[in-house]
Amino acid sequence: MNDIKQKALDFHSKHKGKLQIAGKVSLDTPEDLGMVYTPGMAYPCMEIAEDKSKAYDYTLKATTVAVVTDGTAVLGFGDIGPEASLPVMEGKALVFKKFANIDAYPICLATKDVEDIIMICKNIAPGFGGIHLEDIAAPACFEIEDRLKEELDIPVFHDDQHGTAIVALAGMINALKVVGKTMEESRFVINGAGAAGIAIAKILVNAGASDVILLDSQGTIFKGRDGLNKYKQEIAETTNPRMVDGDLAAAMQDADVFLGVSKANLVSQDMVRSMAANPIVFAMANPVPEIMPEDAIAAGAAVVATGRADYPNQVNNVLAFPGVFKGALDARATDITEEMKVAAAHAIAEMVTEPRPDYIIPGAFEPGLADNVAKAVMGVA
Amino acid sequence: MNDIKQKALDFHSKHKGKLQIAGKVSLDTPEDLGMVYTPGMAYPCMEIAEDKSKAYDYTLKATTVAVVTDGTAVLGFGDIGPEASLPVMEGKALVFKKFANIDAYPICLATKDVEDIIMICKNIAPGFGGIHLEDIAAPACFEIEDRLKEELDIPVFHDDQHGTAIVALAGMINALKVVGKTMEESRFVINGAGAAGIAIAKILVNAGASDVILLDSQGTIFKGRDGLNKYKQEIAETTNPRMVDGDLAAAMQDADVFLGVSKANLVSQDMVRSMAANPIVFAMANPVPEIMPEDAIAAGAAVVATGRADYPNQVNNVLAFPGVFKGALDARATDITEEMKVAAAHAIAEMVTEPRPDYIIPGAFEPGLADNVAKAVMGVA
Repeated sequence: MNDIKQKALDFHSKHKGKLQIAGKVSLDTPEDLGMVYTPGMAYPCMEIAEDKSKAYDYTLKATTVAVVTDGTAVLGFGDIGPEASLPVMEGKALVFKKFANIDAYPICLATKDVEDIIMICKNIAPGFGGIHLEDIAAPACFEIEDRLKEELDIPVFHDDQHGTAIVALAGMINALKVVGKTMEESRFVINGAGAAGIAIAKILVNAGASDVILLDSQGTIFKGRDGLNKYKQEIAETTNPRMVDGDLAAAMQDADVFLGVSKANLVSQDMVRSMAANPIVFAMANPVPEIMPEDAIAAGAAVVATGRADYPNQVNNVLAFPGVFKGALDARATDITEEMKVAAAHAIAEMVTEPRPDYIIPGAFEPGLADNVAKAVMGVA
Repeated sequence: MNDIKQKALDFHSKHKGKLQIAGKVSLDTPEDLGMVYTPGMAYPCMEIAEDKSKAYDYTLKATTVAVVTDGTAVLGFGDIGPEASLPVMEGKALVFKKFANIDAYPICLATKDVEDIIMICKNIAPGFGGIHLEDIAAPACFEIEDRLKEELDIPVFHDDQHGTAIVALAGMINALKVVGKTMEESRFVINGAGAAGIAIAKILVNAGASDVILLDSQGTIFKGRDGLNKYKQEIAETTNPRMVDGDLAAAMQDADVFLGVSKANLVSQDMVRSMAANPIVFAMANPVPEIMPEDAIAAGAAVVATGRADYPNQVNNVLAFPGVFKGALDARATDITEEMKVAAAHAIAEMVTEPRPDYIIPGAFEPGLADNVAKAVMGVA
């Protein structure tokens, strides 16, 4: 473990981080300088001054996404602040570049105030083609995303919600194929009603699921339950149609699918045994899942996915966000809709031509993945 | 002219702008992904969470500058807005990269409100090693820079003030050598009391000048004059010791040096003829100077500089800001002081070993320029 730590620290300190600026054009001679800088740059300035939308023709706006965080929900660490979130945001940006040739830049904010964050995003938007929100704690992340989607004319996407939801849906499409069940007739239980859990519930419903039960630390969420914030109230409208009132063990009884975005070791083998035949278990808590894959399988799980790279079927946001933004930017979409997210999930699922229990989700380096996702997103944009 | 315009527009549209993101590290394999992203990135996050200053070891903060504008004073165009300022900011960023290997990123703001701009800069500061303010109109630029210098612990530099002032001083050091005069005994007249004019007056005084007269559109600025904003009041304390009260023609009589950061054609040949022997004329209005170099020379000017690349002695900010920030970042300075600016000017001047009337300022591609400036800045940091 110390070896990995030292290797990772050396890797990050060698060049002072991971991200740099480069030219799309060369700057080697006074003639180059005359194009890159004075007097050449004056002409696109004049064109854009007359018509703002020409920024998409003459500037990096066409290829650029701001990766915005306040550092309040970073990895498993929680609120570690904007400076400490930088390695994650640089990592995201490099992934954007590698998989979708998108130029993403980290904006790590020293405020947690929802209004401040909204105001800053709105004011930096002229220089970006999209805004990728990252590692912002719930419920602030909902308000920030909702407001920005409403008030900005560039796509806005909170990865912790929708990135996770898209990849989980992609995996679920293939997992259901493996066990021969349908989205419409399966019973889903989602443990964890933070950013990811609510988004997973939404995308499952949008993809055709009719029986989804979401749980927070108080138990199942149902219409009229005490202590629901407005986001939980909203999701209660379209989930838990049987009004199940109980704890996780109760909810999991006879369920076809368990999805966890909660905490380590919350699911026992008995709970898996209580599920319907051939149960699907997506235990996505990181780094320790709700139940270890080997334990889930021993208890009868037919398909298991986690958030970990060292087990099969990693639910990894990396599969979604580069292609989603590529599609949105290429279509010059002003929004990323629920329909676009479902289309992205299907495109990811289709990368696996013959789903097996240990292969329902493609790898990050699957050739053509981001392009396929982008095409699917553009198709419904 | 149309040819240049089309060439410049094609140049800017070919790749959608000029700037892109690249890796400092490679991302080609799942192993690379494990370092760049999960789980590798978690370790520097933890280190920085314990000690914020380690962001300088493990992230791009060490090499990065935000190029911030509100688009209110762009080139000669004035307030053309944040989108239209992008080609300039991308150009600046590429110049930063080329000449000083600094990773600069454009932040073009949709607000002109001084408090908003200050608030945004303070809140994005965690991800940057410095803030380069660009093309923000006076007097907002003064307030913004002053407040940020006070409230942030990273260097802040308004290029339109200090970049121009540093390069003008560099040229002046060599111009005075050419005519055999001293800073201390020369009379200086500066026309234009915006961002650049006030900064030039300040740096000349800081470099030893004792007789500097600054003019705005109302005439010479002197202590107690009507209609002075607080920045002009402040500069009136250290300039115009003879309390000259008059217009530009009056001020230029017997002056050794004219510096213009004002408008086209404001200086006549007669005004040059009224100056002291061997007068120095820096006519820096863009693109048409206060007096054309050939006219100034015909009227007796011994040394002429402009802001133009097609005449000798171009006063070009490109010579200053990359090296200044390189010095400040390498020294991890928390501020860019007046002393550092004067040192930068001397370093630029020294690149010209034998000043001649048509060669007082080095070219942008002079080998070692930014490094020498950086060294000089570090020396007094």
